[in-house]
Amino acid sequence: MKKFLFMAAAALVTATAGAQVTEDFKPATTNQEGKQYPMVNSQRMVRAQISAPQANSVKLDIGGVKYDMKKDENGVWTGESAPQDEGFHYYQLEIDGASVPDPGSKYYYGASRWGSGIDIPAADEEFYTVKNVPQGSINEIYYWSSVTESMRHGYIYLPAEYYSNPDKKFPVLYLQHGMGENETGWSAQGKTGIIMDNLIAAGKAVPFIIYMDNGLNARRPGEQQGGFGGFGGQRPQAGQRPQGAPQGGQRPQGAQGQRPGGARGMGGAGFANMARMFGGAFEDVLMKDIIPMVEKNYRVIADTEHRAMAGLSMGGMQTHGITLANPTKFAYVGIFSGGTISPDELTDAADFKKTNKVLFMSCGGKENMGVDKAAEDLKAIGINAHSYVSPETAHEWQTWRRSLYQFAQLIFK
Amino acid sequence: MKKFLFMAAAALVTATAGAQVTEDFKPATTNQEGKQYPMVNSQRMVRAQISAPQANSVKLDIGGVKYDMKKDENGVWTGESAPQDEGFHYYQLEIDGASVPDPGSKYYYGASRWGSGIDIPAADEEFYTVKNVPQGSINEIYYWSSVTESMRHGYIYLPAEYYSNPDKKFPVLYLQHGMGENETGWSAQGKTGIIMDNLIAAGKAVPFIIYMDNGLNARRPGEQQGGFGGFGGQRPQAGQRPQGAPQGGQRPQGAQGQRPGGARGMGGAGFANMARMFGGAFEDVLMKDIIPMVEKNYRVIADTEHRAMAGLSMGGMQTHGITLANPTKFAYVGIFSGGTISPDELTDAADFKKTNKVLFMSCGGKENMGVDKAAEDLKAIGINAHSYVSPETAHEWQTWRRSLYQFAQLIFK
Repeated sequence: MKKFLFMAAAALVTATAGAQVTEDFKPATTNQEGKQYPMVNSQRMVRAQISAPQANSVKLDIGGVKYDMKKDENGVWTGESAPQDEGFHYYQLEIDGASVPDPGSKYYYGASRWGSGIDIPAADEEFYTVKNVPQGSINEIYYWSSVTESMRHGYIYLPAEYYSNPDKKFPVLYLQHGMGENETGWSAQGKTGIIMDNLIAAGKAVPFIIYMDNGLNARRPGEQQGGFGGFGGQRPQAGQRPQGAPQGGQRPQGAQGQRPGGARGMGGAGFANMARMFGGAFEDVLMKDIIPMVEKNYRVIADTEHRAMAGLSMGGMQTHGITLANPTKFAYVGIFSGGTISPDELTDAADFKKTNKVLFMSCGGKENMGVDKAAEDLKAIGINAHSYVSPETAHEWQTWRRSLYQFAQLIFK
Repeated sequence: MKKFLFMAAAALVTATAGAQVTEDFKPATTNQEGKQYPMVNSQRMVRAQISAPQANSVKLDIGGVKYDMKKDENGVWTGESAPQDEGFHYYQLEIDGASVPDPGSKYYYGASRWGSGIDIPAADEEFYTVKNVPQGSINEIYYWSSVTESMRHGYIYLPAEYYSNPDKKFPVLYLQHGMGENETGWSAQGKTGIIMDNLIAAGKAVPFIIYMDNGLNARRPGEQQGGFGGFGGQRPQAGQRPQGAPQGGQRPQGAQGQRPGGARGMGGAGFANMARMFGGAFEDVLMKDIIPMVEKNYRVIADTEHRAMAGLSMGGMQTHGITLANPTKFAYVGIFSGGTISPDELTDAADFKKTNKVLFMSCGGKENMGVDKAAEDLKAIGINAHSYVSPETAHEWQTWRRSLYQFAQLIFK
């Protein structure tokens, strides 16, 4: 950001639609190779551009607001958004009523669709920037699930030392995405591999394995998915609505609004048990298929003291529900923007209290989830509770990148 | 396909724009989760659909042809393409002149853009279908390049036995993509990991490692990319043209036409040396950075007899040029839709002839590259040459999936 601010001082300042726009736009780091648009300026405004000579209306749809773009004599449409929060945001273009990805950006799975995303430079982006340090890998795998009776798809992060020290065994964190996202979210938007390589190289985290699966698509044979569709997760939407038709499940702001805990904030076990349900058979898949598969195929320290679970939003609620339902299986628990655990839930949960070494709860500064108060209350009943509030971020990936960065430094030590 | 043909027999047949359309369309396997469109029928026609209520014109752009779509009373546009070849094709939608990805499909990097792709069911698709067999992994990595003085990005396939047999070392194939594609092509469109897991499980290929890098973006510090832009590869196009403006480099058919060897067919070392140039410093990156990195970080049999190089189209020409320029470094050579090697080139290439154990050349049946004749000519001068022609496919991924399937069964034996 320093460089951005310096440039802003020198830059032209023009007035557009009443707002002062600093003309120091640069291509976003999330753009496709060689693409100049979308751009971001030092005010964190997004400027999009697309050629649509015959279009009547083109809008930039980001952060729950649609911004009108203007057409020039060559049929090229350009427009800016209001300033956005630091970090990653889903967005899209609307061309004559069609919601489509921006051909300038790379694509990410979130808000129940593959579509455009943009990273707004952040003051602390160093921690998720690729550096010349020992590199682990993000490995794409398939495995057989006895619960769903199908091949399933996941990603596993192996730290650099997994390759360089072939005799060493490692702890494992099971890390889950949010509603409307999938198993690609933590490595792509979340930058999990980069964050971990940097933390381990700096000696701030011990090397551990991270396994990331899909918490929404686990269904037993013949089980329907429609029951979960209300949350835009896995419903075959297009079967009920034409492609691209406005529908919450397909739009970032829609999915945001729909994310339990998103705007509302909440706590307690109710949502957590609902979250266990959203995932259908996910709890069974995790306990009966995934954990045994990881412990069989990789060099893992296969005991509770070296097993952690964490997740964001719905994944945090799943973590909440699953770790309480399996109180002797996970020593470390992280809930990112997924509500809180209350003392009432743990008062009689002797096994959980005996097993738990760290209970971490976080959220964005623009969310109100009461994590600090919750941590104090849990400490009062003897839980090693930690809380973190991400400055100036909402229910989005910058909050969760920072939450992983904090949580990873607390566990397996 | 059997199931498809059976359904076709029973299906409604309607007439659209003069063409008989069999109404047995099913969602494509390359669709986003839960998306019904695009669809494919037993005639291998593609039917796309998108809601664009205010649009004046929407087209389906596939295989070098733009098909007009029709709007219904709800503002939903639907249209079909002519029958397509079996296998994978890039495509896009054009909405009032804007070329955009179809929000129904998953996205792939090719034709110099991330955009829509669709897989047409193929009679032989079993060989690239995920099965419950021992699974390797496709690992995403970063590494430091001393040539480009930057961190670079690649993918490495490790077979299942790499994990299950920790004392074993493996041969390595260095496998390159084509013009307008990148390091993601072989694992995503190419289905490399699935093809290899199935081949190894069936005992048809020995387990080996495959490393996949970007053959187009290797530039020494300060080196410009514009010189290669004529092929639509890595030129910062959007900097010179507005986003989405019609340009060959961004469109499948454009990139097809531009691919040397695509429509023309060719052979000899001229294109191969050009191809070495397209990649800028790629040859240096491969020889000085990638091979040493792979042999240092992984359990590799680090000798010529256990080192292969192959590639498709431009990647095949790079393989041609690089293996001839480094005649003692690679024992196995595969050129897929990348032209041929002529006896003239090898008559005096004693080191290459002594080193080479298999020289494989392939192309699609709809390409004319003379691989059979070239193989005969090479056998006459003592080269263990093999050729393969993919039935009824053009300069596209089905040709290259099949080529890898054939080549993998010939090497390291």
